[in-house]
Amino acid sequence: MTARNLFLLPGDGIGPEAMSEVRKIIVYMNEAMDAGFVTDEGLVGGCAYDAHGAAISEADMQKALAADAVLFGAVGGPKWDSVPYEVRPEAGLLRLRKDLQLFANLRPAICYPALASASSLKPELVEGLDILIIRELTGGVYFGEPKEIIDLGNGQKRGIDTQVYDTYEIERIAGVAFEMARTRQNRVCSMEKRNVMKSGVLWNQVVTETHKTKYSDVQLEHMLADAGGMQLVRQPKQFDVIVTDNLFGDMLSDVAAMLTGSLGMLPSASLGAPDGKTGKRKALYEPVHGSAPDIAGKGVANPIAMIASFAMCLRYSFNMVKEADDLEKAIANVLDKGIRTGDIMADGARQVGTVEMGEAILAEF
Amino acid sequence: MTARNLFLLPGDGIGPEAMSEVRKIIVYMNEAMDAGFVTDEGLVGGCAYDAHGAAISEADMQKALAADAVLFGAVGGPKWDSVPYEVRPEAGLLRLRKDLQLFANLRPAICYPALASASSLKPELVEGLDILIIRELTGGVYFGEPKEIIDLGNGQKRGIDTQVYDTYEIERIAGVAFEMARTRQNRVCSMEKRNVMKSGVLWNQVVTETHKTKYSDVQLEHMLADAGGMQLVRQPKQFDVIVTDNLFGDMLSDVAAMLTGSLGMLPSASLGAPDGKTGKRKALYEPVHGSAPDIAGKGVANPIAMIASFAMCLRYSFNMVKEADDLEKAIANVLDKGIRTGDIMADGARQVGTVEMGEAILAEF
Ligand SMILES: CC(C)[C@H](C(=O)O)[C@@H](O)C(=O)O
Ligand SMILES: CC(C)[C@H](C(=O)O)[C@@H](O)C(=O)O
Repeated sequence: MTARNLFLLPGDGIGPEAMSEVRKIIVYMNEAMDAGFVTDEGLVGGCAYDAHGAAISEADMQKALAADAVLFGAVGGPKWDSVPYEVRPEAGLLRLRKDLQLFANLRPAICYPALASASSLKPELVEGLDILIIRELTGGVYFGEPKEIIDLGNGQKRGIDTQVYDTYEIERIAGVAFEMARTRQNRVCSMEKRNVMKSGVLWNQVVTETHKTKYSDVQLEHMLADAGGMQLVRQPKQFDVIVTDNLFGDMLSDVAAMLTGSLGMLPSASLGAPDGKTGKRKALYEPVHGSAPDIAGKGVANPIAMIASFAMCLRYSFNMVKEADDLEKAIANVLDKGIRTGDIMADGARQVGTVEMGEAILAEF
Repeated sequence: MTARNLFLLPGDGIGPEAMSEVRKIIVYMNEAMDAGFVTDEGLVGGCAYDAHGAAISEADMQKALAADAVLFGAVGGPKWDSVPYEVRPEAGLLRLRKDLQLFANLRPAICYPALASASSLKPELVEGLDILIIRELTGGVYFGEPKEIIDLGNGQKRGIDTQVYDTYEIERIAGVAFEMARTRQNRVCSMEKRNVMKSGVLWNQVVTETHKTKYSDVQLEHMLADAGGMQLVRQPKQFDVIVTDNLFGDMLSDVAAMLTGSLGMLPSASLGAPDGKTGKRKALYEPVHGSAPDIAGKGVANPIAMIASFAMCLRYSFNMVKEADDLEKAIANVLDKGIRTGDIMADGARQVGTVEMGEAILAEF
């Protein structure tokens, strides 16, 4: 069997603690299932800046490019709040996304039944919620040029960012959304602001055209992104797959994640295009939550989002569908048993720390 | 007494029905309070396109520029979904905002006590909610150039929008936010994406500087806009005044409006800078809701947002503070009495149409 190469970037804050629990699962899978994972590890974010003066070193970028999949923890913290823009912790993540060409960000917003009451929404609105947000990740205002601050003199400066989308970028992300929809409820809702943005006009046209020529079996709806944000809060279960651009995806997936009451629990996958020869996709898996510096190092962080990200890795990078299903079921079982970290604590549940939560999931796996 | 000049633009969909109820209040105020309102009326949106081939005519633009205040209903509907981009219904609204230089958009998100249970959030999270979102309205990605679709050949097109903010634009909107905060709980939260946008970096710097030099008595917090969206859903009552850019303001104010359970009820004010000589500000008042074509013409639309927008007009354009307070109280009283339009209907309440609701409010006024 060929080795399965994983590159681990635990990052800052609670990233390393959460990653430790994934490492145990990897070791277990190698021993008990002969999974053949080979891991290497690097630095990203603030810790990389401290060590190398950059948010990720060239050597680690090479390793990320060479790996079958990257597991990413979290980056940032108050310690690095005033480092220069070019080397801020987020720059490491943005460079990984861009250089690995991870254009398709899959963000499931699911509500674990055991946690429906933890949502700020009324339970009946979120029980059974299962949305998949497909966010374009290598284009839009995140990367468009010019992107600069110009000194205009007279004490005036001008901040500029550029939102750019080309036809092919919209086509390929729409393709991912339609393909995913076919494995689910077969419904896609595309969101943009075509009423004020030209990139939104193009987005709408290309999604419509892609649908007509290749995916007319899928149900397609268009919604303005602001109305989409409203509808997520009003009636989230109306959605199956949502496809949207980089910035709207950032906003909308965070709102959707919060709705589930399971923010500390949500994973994400960022995928590239399949390689022409091998069919392999470059991929990075990361929790939706951030580095949570306030609780870092205390052993209380919830490792579920990181573990669920690894489950997505099993599914999308290694086609280990059964193992992915089993790992996700293990998470749900542990929650059903009333084992909880502090962030999802509830009356009558048993509160545990990061390590205990990780081990409880491993025991169920 | 000098006349108070109002220019009414009812627009499309439910706009005209809602505006009719405001017209009755104006007539009443002239008769009973000698308020001296002089009204004129024009077309905007789809109806203006049908009449003039433009989303607003030059003659009506002149009237809007000359008036003390503009009352705006709503624009758009399926009938105009495929008119050219330059003359789409929204273009009328965007031109009014830009040419009248209405840079400060005030969007209160309040939860009427009688409606707390209508929110999709748990009642305890929204009861007593009172946020004021200050959205920059004449800059950012809405108006920056280049804004175009380029044909690249090979079947490829490129959609471009440009996000631009200059120091003075951020300074003046921050000033409005700090001034407003002083009349409330004295707290401002500024939202941007400084971790990915240069305009966000500048926004953050200028707000910080404006605070330090002129408003250090106000409590200031900075939040990333995606985290802000989350926090709005998680714990909306943590906010007093939120200040943010045009696009984030569009998204965040819609989410906030939906949270209150009172979407059909929320007003907004769009204000220009005080005139150097007269101190007067140009101003436009409009409901946050849209034209709701599905219920237009049926006499069932909720006129409260339009009436509450007129209350904001009394307050901000004419300094008629008592009258504004009284009108807002009349709305709350009618709700307390259990009088409801269909959109906010609840068990045990009495369902009424647009006209009855308008008249009930007038009777309480
Ligand atoms: C950390 C930051 C650069 C990032 C983004 O804005 O994309 C984060 O918010 C996310 O959603 O992954
Ligand atoms: C109608 C549209 C152009 C407008 C906007 O995007 O600003 C609307 O959504 C709003 O929030 O007032």
